[in-house]
Amino acid sequence: MDLDALAKAHPDHWSKATAIRALALDAVAAANSGHSGMPMGMADVATVLFEKHLKFDAANPLWPDRDRFILSAGHGSMLIYSLLHLVGDAQFPIEELKNFRQMGARTAGHPENFLADAIETTTGPLGQGIANSVGFAMAEEIQRATYGRKIVDHHTYVIAGDGCLMEGVSQEAITLAGRHNLSKLIVLWDNNNITIDGPVSLSDRTDQIGRFTAAGWHCIEIDGHNPEEIDAALTEARKSDKPTMIACKTHIALGHAAQDTSKGHGALTDAGQLADAKAAYGWPYGPFEIPSDVKSAWEAIGKRGADERRAWEERFDAMSRNKRETFNRALALDPPKKLSATIKAFKKQMSESAPKLATRASSEKVLEVINPIMPETVGGSADLTGSNNTKTGDLGVFDLDNRGGRYVYWGIREHGMAAAMNGMALHGGVRPYGGTFMCFTDYARPSMRLAALMQIPTVFVMTHDSIGLGEDGPTHQPVEHLAISRATPNTYVFRPADTVETAEAWEIALTSRKTPSVLSLTRQGLPTVRKDHKNNNMVEKGAYVLAEAEGKRQVILIASGSEVSVALEARALLQAEGIGVRVVSMPCMELFAAQDDAYRKRILPGGAVRVGIEAGVRQGWDQWLLGERGKFGKADFVGMDRFGASAPAEELFEKFGITAQNVANKAKALL
Amino acid sequence: MDLDALAKAHPDHWSKATAIRALALDAVAAANSGHSGMPMGMADVATVLFEKHLKFDAANPLWPDRDRFILSAGHGSMLIYSLLHLVGDAQFPIEELKNFRQMGARTAGHPENFLADAIETTTGPLGQGIANSVGFAMAEEIQRATYGRKIVDHHTYVIAGDGCLMEGVSQEAITLAGRHNLSKLIVLWDNNNITIDGPVSLSDRTDQIGRFTAAGWHCIEIDGHNPEEIDAALTEARKSDKPTMIACKTHIALGHAAQDTSKGHGALTDAGQLADAKAAYGWPYGPFEIPSDVKSAWEAIGKRGADERRAWEERFDAMSRNKRETFNRALALDPPKKLSATIKAFKKQMSESAPKLATRASSEKVLEVINPIMPETVGGSADLTGSNNTKTGDLGVFDLDNRGGRYVYWGIREHGMAAAMNGMALHGGVRPYGGTFMCFTDYARPSMRLAALMQIPTVFVMTHDSIGLGEDGPTHQPVEHLAISRATPNTYVFRPADTVETAEAWEIALTSRKTPSVLSLTRQGLPTVRKDHKNNNMVEKGAYVLAEAEGKRQVILIASGSEVSVALEARALLQAEGIGVRVVSMPCMELFAAQDDAYRKRILPGGAVRVGIEAGVRQGWDQWLLGERGKFGKADFVGMDRFGASAPAEELFEKFGITAQNVANKAKALL
Repeated sequence: MDLDALAKAHPDHWSKATAIRALALDAVAAANSGHSGMPMGMADVATVLFEKHLKFDAANPLWPDRDRFILSAGHGSMLIYSLLHLVGDAQFPIEELKNFRQMGARTAGHPENFLADAIETTTGPLGQGIANSVGFAMAEEIQRATYGRKIVDHHTYVIAGDGCLMEGVSQEAITLAGRHNLSKLIVLWDNNNITIDGPVSLSDRTDQIGRFTAAGWHCIEIDGHNPEEIDAALTEARKSDKPTMIACKTHIALGHAAQDTSKGHGALTDAGQLADAKAAYGWPYGPFEIPSDVKSAWEAIGKRGADERRAWEERFDAMSRNKRETFNRALALDPPKKLSATIKAFKKQMSESAPKLATRASSEKVLEVINPIMPETVGGSADLTGSNNTKTGDLGVFDLDNRGGRYVYWGIREHGMAAAMNGMALHGGVRPYGGTFMCFTDYARPSMRLAALMQIPTVFVMTHDSIGLGEDGPTHQPVEHLAISRATPNTYVFRPADTVETAEAWEIALTSRKTPSVLSLTRQGLPTVRKDHKNNNMVEKGAYVLAEAEGKRQVILIASGSEVSVALEARALLQAEGIGVRVVSMPCMELFAAQDDAYRKRILPGGAVRVGIEAGVRQGWDQWLLGERGKFGKADFVGMDRFGASAPAEELFEKFGITAQNVANKAKALL
Repeated sequence: MDLDALAKAHPDHWSKATAIRALALDAVAAANSGHSGMPMGMADVATVLFEKHLKFDAANPLWPDRDRFILSAGHGSMLIYSLLHLVGDAQFPIEELKNFRQMGARTAGHPENFLADAIETTTGPLGQGIANSVGFAMAEEIQRATYGRKIVDHHTYVIAGDGCLMEGVSQEAITLAGRHNLSKLIVLWDNNNITIDGPVSLSDRTDQIGRFTAAGWHCIEIDGHNPEEIDAALTEARKSDKPTMIACKTHIALGHAAQDTSKGHGALTDAGQLADAKAAYGWPYGPFEIPSDVKSAWEAIGKRGADERRAWEERFDAMSRNKRETFNRALALDPPKKLSATIKAFKKQMSESAPKLATRASSEKVLEVINPIMPETVGGSADLTGSNNTKTGDLGVFDLDNRGGRYVYWGIREHGMAAAMNGMALHGGVRPYGGTFMCFTDYARPSMRLAALMQIPTVFVMTHDSIGLGEDGPTHQPVEHLAISRATPNTYVFRPADTVETAEAWEIALTSRKTPSVLSLTRQGLPTVRKDHKNNNMVEKGAYVLAEAEGKRQVILIASGSEVSVALEARALLQAEGIGVRVVSMPCMELFAAQDDAYRKRILPGGAVRVGIEAGVRQGWDQWLLGERGKFGKADFVGMDRFGASAPAEELFEKFGITAQNVANKAKALL
């Protein structure tokens, strides 16, 4: 590349873009780790986007109608940190950039949404950002349909790299965006031909334009270092009635000795080469030094949206009080006042009518009372609507002719659904929940983990949660999946035993602000075990005494979900022999672990043998069976220690010994 | 559809295809569950494939040079069961079909590779079969390059549905196939426009022809009920120098009242409608009744390949003895005789030289001695070759001009890599291993589970296995991933402490026949802890005493991987205060759990306090800390109870308290 020609052609642009390149080089050199090449390659694109197109106000990064900027290629984090510093975001003074990748800095190795207001989503695991962006764009459509274009009218811009496009989840994302004509979604592909292992051609020769076109996208190809082409492409993209992919031909590590090489992808820390690059840019400034004229030019960009924001606030204040309150309440993740009373009334009714229902059907009954009073919920399923019981009559289907529809047919895209739901939650104003078979936690897993890390309350409705699934067999029977979600920090795993506990679990999931929820629900029918109505949400305690021992307490049976009724039957068998048995229902281990010692000791006192019962692996149970920190507990477990099999459900529970009789026998063997 | 016209046009074909439809209807009706529509829709395609193209010999389903037939749309399992019964596969008498989806039957809800020889792979989780098929085709190329076209020359045929193509992993698969011109891979897409939720258009409008073309495939569109078009397309596909996708326009549940509806996707059990469908077919036979002329026509198809197989056996016997032995040894998953001695010599050398190495580097050293003597190994990485240390000099790179290359640049496709490696293992003759960062277990997870379920020894090389990864931060730092793999049945999770344990872990992984392995390896350097050479493979025991207590044993420290050296330092601190400490290295919990009680008690006796140390979550550890079945154990754990952070590794271990001093303090607090 002839840098001088670039500099001469657009001197003002060049100095702004070079500021980004210089900061990326300096920060990576200071940290002695990170990725210099991507920010250096995409600096021109980002500069034009921020200068001419992105709707934002650096002083108000949380302005609800801002355009969303998503750096899907998260390893290039210095690009966004440089931009935020340059435009004058108060959270990104130069010291933050000097502390790149150091303990406690906002400038983490990859962008973390929970560390700064202007970081819309956590990226780094490739493909996640572009998949989140589909949810951002859907949430914008839904809100626009609800509040009108005067209040909600913004774009979602994504910078994605070759890695993002190679990850399978990107296919789920772009076909969803194409299906729904998400015309306000604009993806800027950093087409630099380089991956860590070498040229992209080592592993991929996909015609990305052909691929996106086949998915229903508008595509534009440009020189990613030509500000006029970048500007024209963005203008065209904003006019398109389809989602747009702009293929930006760039040189990774532009102007550095490592330009256009896989070395350029990584940390460029060689002092001499760094100096040479800056010289080639005509940038005589020291580390982290930005000349005042360049800085003020950038700060002007940061203020560009201030008037527009003020005008928006006037329009917002002109909205009806009711609409304003609903908008703000949903954005603040406040539940509607009615919710608590509605759940209580529902629970009372269920405790009295005591239906025998699969908890997936219980879940639908709960949603039927919640969705009408919580307009922010957005439901969906990965092509298992009838099986996941996620659709209620009032939602309406999200589609081209019904942008306000609150139900999404996600298709056979568990991963894309999870990532897009995260995007919806991050956008704000909506509360997404979506269903699949629990076994397909495996497919959704990368995004389920990120929901936990990002501290967003996405709700994963996982039905057919054990061998109770029956004939479909071991590929579809979860065995380890409760353990998998429980192993993940900041995740509520709810396994309700009946309709009442299901309602309590939903109440917690839909009032959670910073923790995602996994609802583990049965295919098979379960009796109501909570027949005495309690106003208190018992699931909130994580575990509680469902049935007390008659006579001396010799045994404590601890169970979750479909095995709670098994525990009650086992209790009846043992009490009939004069053995006192307490049954503890444990719908949420995480919430029980969060209770104080006194409560936990009250529910699980010493002096009795313990049997845990769950149609899954034992892993995660020993803390309750063997006692915490070594408190004595003679114990056993009834569950699964291998994969399931294909047969009718009842036969499977017999075959694997998850029966009241087996539980009773194991308990007696401990006495 | 005018069924009469179809029947009249090709009466012989029609009766053969109808036999499949009738069996599918009868078996699903008998089981009162399953999926009738797909077998009914694809019966014509499958009939022509088996009658005119598929190279197989029903009497010898394991003939190494057979064509592979993969039913990626595994829910349509009655299609393959019907075919295998009709062609006379001895494992599929009519009784098996009558027991469809019942306990102990081979005819499981979804095809299970471990239940029948002719079932090449377990399918059901959508997208897996088509992704496996890339590995099948690669293994065929590698073997053909090694043994010549006379010995290895077969195709891989895949039947995939809309669900398979919507799953992101299918994109990783088809772009890999396109990149490598896997011309012997032929995908038959059941283009029936229907998913469970309704018409495909509800959730997808992808131009699949455009998409596959963009990935470098040859595409053909046909009427999936016209035997001449099917035959012509298969002939054309076999001639193509690219992988071919044949879009077969079909009617799901052809001829049934539910034809072309989502209801037709499921179980069609209505007796009247079933009778009407058979009548429409002109099929007057009772349940599971196949007229002898049709059965014998099918059995003739089953014998079609017998001569070809015999000719192949003659060619095989004509090969050099050495080649025959290597071919058969690899197919039988027998390790080379040299392996054991080679590992012992390597271990001795490492114990003596005691290098300080990251275990990912140790792994590379091990592979440098193994790969030259194990020609069946095929390595690779998902674009992290230099970080995963998976490439050794002798392998050569698999590419268009080097089909015998044993290293695959998988690109940024963790899921596709895992699925394709499974395909390679299932094809046989090669032993695949592949690397990524351990955190991306999340992406590979669906295929890692299937490796365990399918009982195949795929090796997953997972490096950067803790906060030791450092600056990249929490998105890249595994915390729960050891627990996730340990929760999965039939999976070895190895977390070696040094180069010697790494060699022992590799020896087990590469001699395993039915269990996949996860190698958890560090980014950061570790000292050699095994300085006294032992010929025995100590990792085989799962856990063992690394350092005995001096004086009275008051404390047992149990650790894995990078925390074993932390335990040794803590021991030094405690012994200095006169506290006797045993250090147990636990590189593989699954193998330790498989030892007899006596051994486990010898390694973890009572009477001492226990502290577990691992830079991951506690889940899975309590069984060793608190004792099994309630044996007394006063214990604590030093590890991670939240996500990590972005900072230099040493600072992170300090911040999260994974230090010798903290371990010593916690141990003393228990005394």
